[in-house]
This record gives sequence, structure tokens and C-alpha cells, in this order.
Amino acid sequence: MLADIRDASLRTRGLERIAWARRSMPVLNAIAGELDLTGRTVGLVLVLEPKTANLALTLRDAGADVIVTCPASETADDVAAALVSEGVAVLARSDASPERDRDSALRMLREGLDVLADDGSRVVRLAHAENLLGGLIGAAEETTSGLRPLRVMADRGELRIPVLAVNDARSKYLFDNVHGTGQSCVMAALDLTGLQLAGAVCVVAGYGYVGQGVARYARALGARVVVTEVEPFAALRAHHEGYEVRPLLDACPDADLVFSATGVAHTVTREHLRAMRPGAVVAVAGGVPDEVEAGDVPAGVTVLAEGECVNCAAAEGNPIEIMDLSLAVQALAVDHLVRRGSTMAPAVHLLPEELDERVARLKLRALGIGLDTPSARQREFLGRGL
Amino acid sequence: MLADIRDASLRTRGLERIAWARRSMPVLNAIAGELDLTGRTVGLVLVLEPKTANLALTLRDAGADVIVTCPASETADDVAAALVSEGVAVLARSDASPERDRDSALRMLREGLDVLADDGSRVVRLAHAENLLGGLIGAAEETTSGLRPLRVMADRGELRIPVLAVNDARSKYLFDNVHGTGQSCVMAALDLTGLQLAGAVCVVAGYGYVGQGVARYARALGARVVVTEVEPFAALRAHHEGYEVRPLLDACPDADLVFSATGVAHTVTREHLRAMRPGAVVAVAGGVPDEVEAGDVPAGVTVLAEGECVNCAAAEGNPIEIMDLSLAVQALAVDHLVRRGSTMAPAVHLLPEELDERVARLKLRALGIGLDTPSARQREFLGRGL
Amino acid sequence: MLADIRDASLRTRGLERIAWARRSMPVLNAIAGELDLTGRTVGLVLVLEPKTANLALTLRDAGADVIVTCPASETADDVAAALVSEGVAVLARSDASPERDRDSALRMLREGLDVLADDGSRVVRLAHAENLLGGLIGAAEETTSGLRPLRVMADRGELRIPVLAVNDARSKYLFDNVHGTGQSCVMAALDLTGLQLAGAVCVVAGYGYVGQGVARYARALGARVVVTEVEPFAALRAHHEGYEVRPLLDACPDADLVFSATGVAHTVTREHLRAMRPGAVVAVAGGVPDEVEAGDVPAGVTVLAEGECVNCAAAEGNPIEIMDLSLAVQALAVDHLVRRGSTMAPAVHLLPEELDERVARLKLRALGIGLDTPSARQREFLGRGL
Amino acid sequence: MLADIRDASLRTRGLERIAWARRSMPVLNAIAGELDLTGRTVGLVLVLEPKTANLALTLRDAGADVIVTCPASETADDVAAALVSEGVAVLARSDASPERDRDSALRMLREGLDVLADDGSRVVRLAHAENLLGGLIGAAEETTSGLRPLRVMADRGELRIPVLAVNDARSKYLFDNVHGTGQSCVMAALDLTGLQLAGAVCVVAGYGYVGQGVARYARALGARVVVTEVEPFAALRAHHEGYEVRPLLDACPDADLVFSATGVAHTVTREHLRAMRPGAVVAVAGGVPDEVEAGDVPAGVTVLAEGECVNCAAAEGNPIEIMDLSLAVQALAVDHLVRRGSTMAPAVHLLPEELDERVARLKLRALGIGLDTPSARQREFLGRGL
Repeated sequence: MLADIRDASLRTRGLERIAWARRSMPVLNAIAGELDLTGRTVGLVLVLEPKTANLALTLRDAGADVIVTCPASETADDVAAALVSEGVAVLARSDASPERDRDSALRMLREGLDVLADDGSRVVRLAHAENLLGGLIGAAEETTSGLRPLRVMADRGELRIPVLAVNDARSKYLFDNVHGTGQSCVMAALDLTGLQLAGAVCVVAGYGYVGQGVARYARALGARVVVTEVEPFAALRAHHEGYEVRPLLDACPDADLVFSATGVAHTVTREHLRAMRPGAVVAVAGGVPDEVEAGDVPAGVTVLAEGECVNCAAAEGNPIEIMDLSLAVQALAVDHLVRRGSTMAPAVHLLPEELDERVARLKLRALGIGLDTPSARQREFLGRGL
Repeated sequence: MLADIRDASLRTRGLERIAWARRSMPVLNAIAGELDLTGRTVGLVLVLEPKTANLALTLRDAGADVIVTCPASETADDVAAALVSEGVAVLARSDASPERDRDSALRMLREGLDVLADDGSRVVRLAHAENLLGGLIGAAEETTSGLRPLRVMADRGELRIPVLAVNDARSKYLFDNVHGTGQSCVMAALDLTGLQLAGAVCVVAGYGYVGQGVARYARALGARVVVTEVEPFAALRAHHEGYEVRPLLDACPDADLVFSATGVAHTVTREHLRAMRPGAVVAVAGGVPDEVEAGDVPAGVTVLAEGECVNCAAAEGNPIEIMDLSLAVQALAVDHLVRRGSTMAPAVHLLPEELDERVARLKLRALGIGLDTPSARQREFLGRGL
Repeated sequence: MLADIRDASLRTRGLERIAWARRSMPVLNAIAGELDLTGRTVGLVLVLEPKTANLALTLRDAGADVIVTCPASETADDVAAALVSEGVAVLARSDASPERDRDSALRMLREGLDVLADDGSRVVRLAHAENLLGGLIGAAEETTSGLRPLRVMADRGELRIPVLAVNDARSKYLFDNVHGTGQSCVMAALDLTGLQLAGAVCVVAGYGYVGQGVARYARALGARVVVTEVEPFAALRAHHEGYEVRPLLDACPDADLVFSATGVAHTVTREHLRAMRPGAVVAVAGGVPDEVEAGDVPAGVTVLAEGECVNCAAAEGNPIEIMDLSLAVQALAVDHLVRRGSTMAPAVHLLPEELDERVARLKLRALGIGLDTPSARQREFLGRGL
Repeated sequence: MLADIRDASLRTRGLERIAWARRSMPVLNAIAGELDLTGRTVGLVLVLEPKTANLALTLRDAGADVIVTCPASETADDVAAALVSEGVAVLARSDASPERDRDSALRMLREGLDVLADDGSRVVRLAHAENLLGGLIGAAEETTSGLRPLRVMADRGELRIPVLAVNDARSKYLFDNVHGTGQSCVMAALDLTGLQLAGAVCVVAGYGYVGQGVARYARALGARVVVTEVEPFAALRAHHEGYEVRPLLDACPDADLVFSATGVAHTVTREHLRAMRPGAVVAVAGGVPDEVEAGDVPAGVTVLAEGECVNCAAAEGNPIEIMDLSLAVQALAVDHLVRRGSTMAPAVHLLPEELDERVARLKLRALGIGLDTPSARQREFLGRGL
């Protein structure tokens, strides 16, 4: 079995942490018994921590040979050791150079994957560039920013495999992007700085799902939140939800804390950084490379986590219950690709609605939440339109 | 000129109220100069109050002959008088019987309309049923519940004119349904009852745009809010936003106040009403006929406004600034139908995106809110997908 | 029986409204049976509406001869008629001149009161000035601004009767001032103007109990709230609770809506009014005469209710459940004065703690809320300090 | 100079962290120049981390010989090393046994202190018990739970020195207890567990300043909060602020997370722990020993930080800006004791109002917040009471 990890002796701590997370993952537990991946090889690219490790174990339990890779900055060595001890191939260590990270991805691809679950579409694009698609049936991609280049590739006719847009499942983006990233990025920024938000001015660039979550949690913790936007409807929504809306450059001099939540490079430029006052702190929520131009930061301004996503690089990512939903979607996406991928066109596809809804219903059941059911009279009303 | 109003002497008070509202309608003011309806006859069906009266005046200023009808329960006689004094035909009086209301709609149709702006699609359907479409180019419809039967008619091939779904413009539903109806229904219920929400249990049936708004404002005023839903994603969203989610029948015994916000008939049935405790109050937000089965209410339970939409029947509808957006969309829809309606298929159409966005941008300008513009590097990033 | 009311035929409507309010007044109901005012004459000064009418009826049921006065602007004629039909003497009509209002107060005093429950201390001061104290045992006063001059009188040795500071009972100010006045003033301002708060800038002058309530409800309804203060701790609290804090003159140009909540005359001066933009609206929450200098308002700026307390003058005062607490305190204060007033010094006294707590416990019982009880070990811990 | 620390080589990291915190401590910076402690010996007992280290340095800069002690569980060794390198005596190491901690406190007392700034009143009580008061002028105590036994001692005539109740300064408790402890305890609990609050049921035992802060932040992060209380007014306030209020034992079966915020021993007993469901988590906010009976926890229930205050034991205490206020109060209290302590009775004293207000005004100045000033007419109004 492939293994390139830092310290196998850390496995006990890793196993404990994986088990703690598992306690709060009822949805992944519920679907585990329904998957059949016997004899398949599945590549997983993910932030390697206790919650995501449970996805690897679930796929292994379903019969798959699982290979995991993860960049050095997002690897928990104890979790890597634990997975190896459980029979999962892992090529991930916190002391790897960028070159070694790339080599690990190439090694994984050369093993001959049936399905790839990617994070940021880095490995899907590498497989295309290096001609290492082999017998790959398809891939699942779980981030907004990873899907964007794949859609451009599809538009240009360059995408050669079907891709399931895990990010666009409602079970994922309605909860992971708003509540998961919102809560965890705000908290990671406070942890890193020791500062408080009560009374602080917090600027949030971008009012998409992630930005909405960050703005909501920042305000909830007492900040006065200023939103910046390029899109008029998003700007108006922010205004009606009680936020001040201004251009970013105009807001920078007042900011105690700036979150970039656009997923677009060059959002916070040198010009913006220079407009901030001493003591200002900048963080990226979600994030793509160069979202903050962190190369030349003025004295007195602090860019957290060197401009990488603050909750992944500096904390342990999203809350467990949220990841339970996202990882369940990813597991179902892998299963769906194994069963149906060979019939799917090389394009970006949505997850079938019934799988998405199954995740939501399992979560409701785990929470003990009951729904109403339309009565016969109501179905009749809806059928004739009134 | 057609006129059937209650008391022409009320016009002064009506004109004052119309002018007060106009002060807070910058968007309608801004587009007024751009419309050209010379020589056209436009029928308007609306809740007749000072804000909507400004739509009638705007269309008249654009050159149209305008005919207004409104059911008795939603007619402000002073506003009707004011419109007539300003040269708008009005068939609406607060003392009309249902038969007289219907006759007024028929009289309006027989005048030979070019375009009809409807509310609840009552008159569009009447025109189909009575074969009074005549030379009608098309209609605009502004409510969720009015569009539903028109879509069923379109599916069955029975719709004979193009309909613009004003309700589905983002400038309308993102603000009118959430903030307008949310704020005004909660406030109307408190005004009518003299009760407070701090510490009360408020049950909200339905977590669509209207229900989200009602739940948000009720919680903001201190209520503990319980949401009921039939749809799993909506239920999960409510749960993650901190609301308790339960079946309606289960929640009724705890409720101080129940809002029905489903837009579906028979939501609050006799069985639900009987499960409530003495002192409970029921209100409809948005609403369709029979949404609450108000015919046989148990002693001790109060159904506000006889089960009609509480903010229309018992107060003066939505806040001015919100109506400014919705009425501007409606004015642009009327103008679009005049210019393009004859080329449109007999179906339910969305408002062209550029008109919708124009309304949003005019509102931002009125608010003095500046947007950012993507830089050249950002446009390049977006173009290649990363 | 004394009676000077406008229209006795309105009594049926008044009785209905009084009964509706009574449904939500469990605390007043609970103490009603415990009072004994047989043979006493009690003067009541209050905003005459259905809730306060229940205090008059409760005192009558306890055996008192009750005489009610109320200024014209705060009198509901139907309620006045209803009280007379129930055997309560009422000198209050909505068409009275200020002179007639004053005469009514003098007539009441000349009847020979045992106890007076005052509102704003207008009649207590009148009784001192006109030498009409007679056999008055003592008075209860329920407002912050009414107590202030009485305390100055006490300091100067000019107060000749004991006064119970009903306002300073925790059952009153913790709920009435924050939640009652907060909710009702914000709602009255929105009702009067038809405006919305989502996205509006709302300036609140004063961050005492009333100002805190107004700020909280305004923010809850979507406003961006700016607080102005003269006191440093109050300013810091507002800042930590996420409000912007600025001097009033500096904030005026940004304001859509200004609430004065200081209870101090000359808070919003001509200079402030001139600094506001056209369309700005000013309202008083709580309030004393001349709190807003409403005599010379610039064009384009609107002062609601001519600068009187917006929820009393333009709506029906506080929510029922809140008034239930305040009126119960007042009833107990009247009873306490009858039993103990002759032994109390001519000074401003707090309500005895046990009466205040009794009201709170009755409210909890009505709500079905259970408290914990310290265990033996906890009492021991508290007894030795750890 | 006295020193018992773990590793002097950690000083560089400690100095960096102390300097980072100092950037956000404008109030302590502002008063630093005004203190004069030349030739005095000051004992400090505190959670030893970068923020509190700045108090030690400030007192040293004012001329004092400073001796610091701290229990092992609350000692950051790098900060201890940094202070020693800066000339502060430190007896605190993270590997000390409870006996060694006690010995360190005794060593400090035997040095002959002029003033003692205590935390939890452990050392003040030790000094009384061991007859080591010597020439101690007085002590400052900064916690609610530390003051309680001192007040009992004072009542019994056993307190032999004046104590300044730093905790009872408004600059301290209005911000530290509500916002500091509220935010930091909620965040520490989420960090430790990886869980989220959106949709969770969070029970808060005690609705004093700390409990109010915990409840507010938990709800802000999406939890449904249940409050438990023994005191009727606190229970009613919680109810009116929208929280469910129930007895603790009744609430335990529904809880995902329980915070004890009473500061009273035996609040969460074995009986309560057994009533919780598997997966429940318990944390102490603020806290005294045995507040949670953590000795015999049922399987499936987790007590964080072994029942010690979760934000001190498992995170780095309160936000910097909040500590800036509290530490400034403490510095002024030490200075006041040096100047006036010998004239003060052996009792628990409040900090003089003017010192408290000075801290608040310095904070406002640092924030750039302007206050209004009452006009001549307003002062006249207030002087005559209306």
C-alpha cells in the first residue's frame, strides 16, 4: 500500500480524534451501508483532518481502495498516520515541499483511479495537463472556485471527463458555505489575533453565500459590518439586511478587520492594503490564490495565514455537523460516478436531485425534525394552480 | 371618464397622502421620464392606497389612459377620489358588494385594454373566462399566488396572452416578499392585537421568502419562533438559522401567534385551530383564499382580518421604499409589453434581466451606495476561470 | 357620580376593548382578589385606553371609589364611556381644552382623595401648588420624568406627602421601559410614516432603558443605529453592543429617523433639526415637554405627534402584557399607601422589595415558567461566601 | 530577583506575544505615565498570558518591584520567561504541582508586599490564614467569586485589610463579564469540540452578567438558548429577551451544550449530568471549584477543561481590548491603594467613581468616540427636576 506520511507513531491520537468527529456525523453513518465500491480505486484530495478522514474510511468500508493526498499546509500528521493504520493509502505530510506535494498527486494518478474526489480541481486539471486521465470515469469537485475553471474548460471543449458539482448540491452550499465557512472563518480570525468583534468595524468583500455567512456571524459577535460588492442585487440585499454598503477602497480606512469572501483573485490589492490604518487585520474566507496581494504588506497591517483561507490554514476547517452533510454528498457523488459516470457526457453536472434530497432528509431524521405533508386538498390546490 | 367612487370630496386628504408617499419613491420617479405609453389604455388592479396610486399617476404621465379597479376591502376612498381628480379612471369603492367589484372588472375589460397589470391574476382569468381579451397585448402579474394558476393554464395550453412575471423579478421578490411583507405583516398583527412578541411563541407555517421575512422580524421583536415546513431543504435552513422546526399540529398547542405564509389553501385547518390554546391569534401573510379555514373558529382563538392577508386588509400594505421597487418593476413591465408584447408567445415570461437590474441600480443611486468594479486583472481571472 | 365624558353611547365598543385587553392581563387578575380598598377614594391619572381602564376596574372591585382624569390628547372616548357605565367617575374627553383638563384635575382633587396614582406628577405638583392636598395619604408615580421633579421637591423640603416610585420597581422599568416603550415607539413611528427600517439610518439620542429598547428594536427591524450620549459608560456599552456612537449634531445629516429618548428638555434643538436632510423624521420616545424644539421645524423635516411621546399620542401605548406588570405594581402601590402610607415620611420611596418580587413571580406563574431552587449545599456555599 | 520558571529560553516568543497584545491596549498605555509606585513591592496573581503580562510591565515601569504568581494550569511559560528577562520576579511554571503553586504564593507573601492584586482572593485568604499580612496596605480583587468570601469575612469582622473591588468597577464588569467572558467562553467551547451552534440547543445556567453574555453570543451563533435561573427578575428578563426559561433538570435532556455561569458550587450535579443525552457537552463560564460535579461523569457526556473556566483553562482568556479596560482598572486600584490605602477601613471598597470614569473616558478617546455635553438649558432643566 502506498504511504508517505511523517510519523506513523501518531496514529493513536489521530484515531481518537477521528472517532470524536464520527460521533457527530449521523448522515455519513446512515449512507455508509448503502454504498458499493467493491474493487474500485478512489482518489481523494482533501484538507486532511479528523472529519474528512471519516470520508476516506467510509469509502474504504464500501469496498474501495482509497488513496488520499493533501498539501503540506493542510495535513494533520496524526490523522494521516491513523488512516494508514486503517488500510488507507496516504501521500501527505506536513513537511512536504510544493514539489513533493505535486509528486504525490502524480503518484496517485498513476495508480489508475476509477473516480477522483477533488478539492479546488487542482488534480483534475493536473491529470488533463499531464495526460494522466487513464481510465478515470469521472470526478467530484466540492468548491465554488474549483468548479469555475472546469466550467471554462467545458465551454472550450477541453474537459474530457464528467464532473459532478458537489459544491452546487443544496445540501452542501446552503449550509457549508453560509454556516460552516461563516462561523469557522470568523472564529479562526479571532483566535489568531486575540481580538474581539464587539464594537469593531469589519469589512466583508463579497456578499455571496460565504460572505453572507461571514457578515452574519461578525455582526452577531458585535461588529459593525460594511459590505462591498460589484453586483447590484447582492449590494441591495446587504443594504436591506442592515449592513452599510460602500466601495472597498472607501471602507478600508475605517476597518479593524477585512474579510475577502469573493473567491476572485486580486480582490484586496496593494492599494487597498495601503489605505488601511495601523492595526488592521486581513483574512481570506474561502479563497483562491492571490485573492489578497499578500506579497508587500505595509507595516502595521497583518494578513492572517499568509492570505490562504483562514479557517483551513489556521484552524480545523468547518464544524463537524456541517462537514457531515458535505462529505455525505461527496460519498454519494463518488458512488453515482461509479454507477453512472460512464454514461455521462464530459461536462459539469449537478448531483441528481434525489441524492441531494436524501442527504437533507437523513439530516432531518438525525435531528428528530418532522415535516408536514401536503393534504389531499392541498395537492389538488397545487395541481390546478390555486 | 369612467368613475365609480364613494366620495369625491375626500380628494384633498388623498392627494396629501399620495404626495407624502411620493417623497420616498425615488426609483419610480427616476424611470417616470423614460416611459412612453402615448395613446395606450392600461388597466390596473391593485390594493388602492397612496403608494400604488403613484403607479397610476406615473403611467398617466407617460401618456396612458389609466383605469383602476380594486376590491372593496382594499380600497381607500380618499385615494380613489384623488386619482379621479387627477384624470385617472377609477372603479373602486369601499362599500361595493362582491358583485359590484366583479362588474367593475368587467367594465374595465370592456373598455378595450392594451395592457393589464394584475394582482392575484383574478382579472386575467376573468378575461379568459368571459372571452374579453379583445386586443389585450399582454399582462403583468405581481404575486406568487397569482402566477401559479397562470402557469398551470400555460402548461395546459389555455393561456392566450403573454404574461410578465413581475413577482419573479429580483428587484421585487428579494425585497418585497422578505422585507416588505415580513415587516408589515408582523407589525399589522401587533397593531391589531395590542400584544407584544417579546417572550411569545410565534409559529410560522412555510419558510419561503415571505415566511423567512416573517420569522426574521418576529424573532427580531423577541419571539421564540417555530417554523413548519413540507420541504426538507427549507426545513434544514430554518434549523440552521436557529429556529425550532416541528410539524404544525405539534406546534399549535404552544403558539401565542400563528402566521400562515405558505400561499397554499388549507394550511391552517380546523384541526389545527382546535389544537390551539385560548388566546391564540392566527394571521395570514401573503395569502390565498382558504389558507386558514376561518369558517368555524373555536372560542378563544382569534383569526385576524378574517383570514385575509393581514397587512393588506388591516394595514396599508408594504413600506413605501419597498413598494417603490415593486411599482417601478411593474411600470417597466407595462412599458415592455407595449413595446414588445406583440412578439412574445402566450406564456409566463420573466422580466428581461436588464430592466430588473436597472431598477436595482437606480435604487442604489438613490441610496448613494457605490459598487466596486472588477479590475482588468480580475476580469482576466474570471475569463479563464481562475 | 362625577362624569365629564364626550359620548356615553360609545360604551359597548369600549367594554369590548377593555375585555380583550383583560384576557392578556393575568397578573392584574391574580392580585385583584388580594386588595382591600373599601371606602377609600382613589384618583387615577393615566393614558385612558383599554389596558389602563382595567386598573380602574380592579381598584373599584377592591372597594374603592375611583376617579379618573386624562388629558384630551390621550383620551379614548369609548373607554371613558365604558368606565362610567361600570361605576367609575371619569373626567376626561378628547375634545377638552387644556383649561378644561386642568379643571378636571382640580375637581378630582377637591373630591378628597385618599391616594393618587399619577402619571408625570402633574397632579401631585398641582395639588401642592393649589394647596389641595387635603387628607391625601400619598401618591404613586409611574414615570422617570415624573419622579425627577418630585425628588427635587423632596431635596428642597417641599414635598409634603410620601410618594411611591412605581417607575423604579424592577417589575416596571426592566420591562416597560425597555420592551414596552422600545417596541411601541418604533412601531408607532413606522405606522405613522409608512416607512421601513431595513437599510435606514436611525439615530437614538440617549441610551438609558428606553433608548436601549428603541435601539434594539430599530436594529432588529434592519436599521443601522447610531447612538448619542452624554455619559461615558452608557456610550461604551452602546459601542460594545455594536452601535455606532457619535455626537448628535454630527449624526443628524445621515439620519432617516431620529428618536429622542433622553427625557431631558431641549435634546433635539433647532440647530439639530436644521442639520437634518429633507425627508428626515423625528420622534420622541418617553418624553418630556420641549424635548424636541418642535416650534420651528425646517421644511422637509417631519416631527411626529408634534413632539409628544409617539407611542402615547399616536398609538395605544405599550403592549398589554407589559402594561399588566406595570399596572399590577401600581395597584399594589395604591394598596400599600392605604395600609402604610400614614407611617411613611414625605419623601420618594421605593416599592417594598417583596411586593415587587410578588409581581415578578405571578408573571412567571402565568407564563408557566419554573425556577430552580438553591440546594442545601448551594445555600451553605453562599453562606460562607464560597 | 525571585524566579521559578520552566524555560528561560522561551523569552523571545513571549516578548513577541506581549508586544502584539500591547498594540491593542490603548487605555493601559494612556494611564501608564500617571502612576507612581517608586520603591513599592506589588504582588500580582493572574492568569499569566500576554495581556496580563502588560500589567506587570506597566507596574514595573511605574517604579514598583513586581512579583507574579500563577497556578500551573494557567501559566504560559514563554510569557513567564519574557517577564523575567524584563526584570519582573515570576514564580509560575506550567509543570508545577499544587503544592509548589502554594509554596510560590507563600514565597511571594514572605517578600513583604505593599499591595496585592489578587484573582479569586486565594492569596488574600492564604495571607490571613497563614498570618502573612505583614505590612500589606491593601489588596485589589478582580472577580465576582473572589469577592464573595471576602465580603463574608468582612461581615464576620475577619477581614484585616482594605480590599478594592475591581470587579465591581463599571469599566470592568459591564464589558469584561458580558462581552469578554461571553465571547471567549462560547468560542473556547466551539474550538475544543469542533461543533457548531447553528441549530444546537444551548442551556445557560444563570443569567447574571456572564450568563447574559454567554446566552447572547450563543444565540448570535445560531443556537436555541434555554436559560435557567433561581431569581425571578433575572428569569423574566431572559424571557423578555426571547429565551426559553426552564428548570435545569428539565432542560438537560434537550441540551447539546450546557454552560454553567452561576459562580455557585454544585450548579450542575450528578443528577443533571445523568439526565443529559449522549453527546452532550458541559462547560463552565467564569466559575468556582465544583460548579460542575465533574468527578463522576456518565459515558457519552463530556465536561470541558475538567470543569474549570473554559476560556481560561483551554484558551487565552478574554479579548485584548476588554482586558485593556480591566487591567487599567487594576493598575489604578494598585496606585490608589498605595496613595490612600492606609486611610481605608478593613472592608471591601468600591473603586472611586472618578477613577472608574477616567478609564471609560480614555477608552472612548482611544476609539475616537465623541460625547455630547448638556447645554446650559439642559443643565437648568435637570437642576429643577424638569
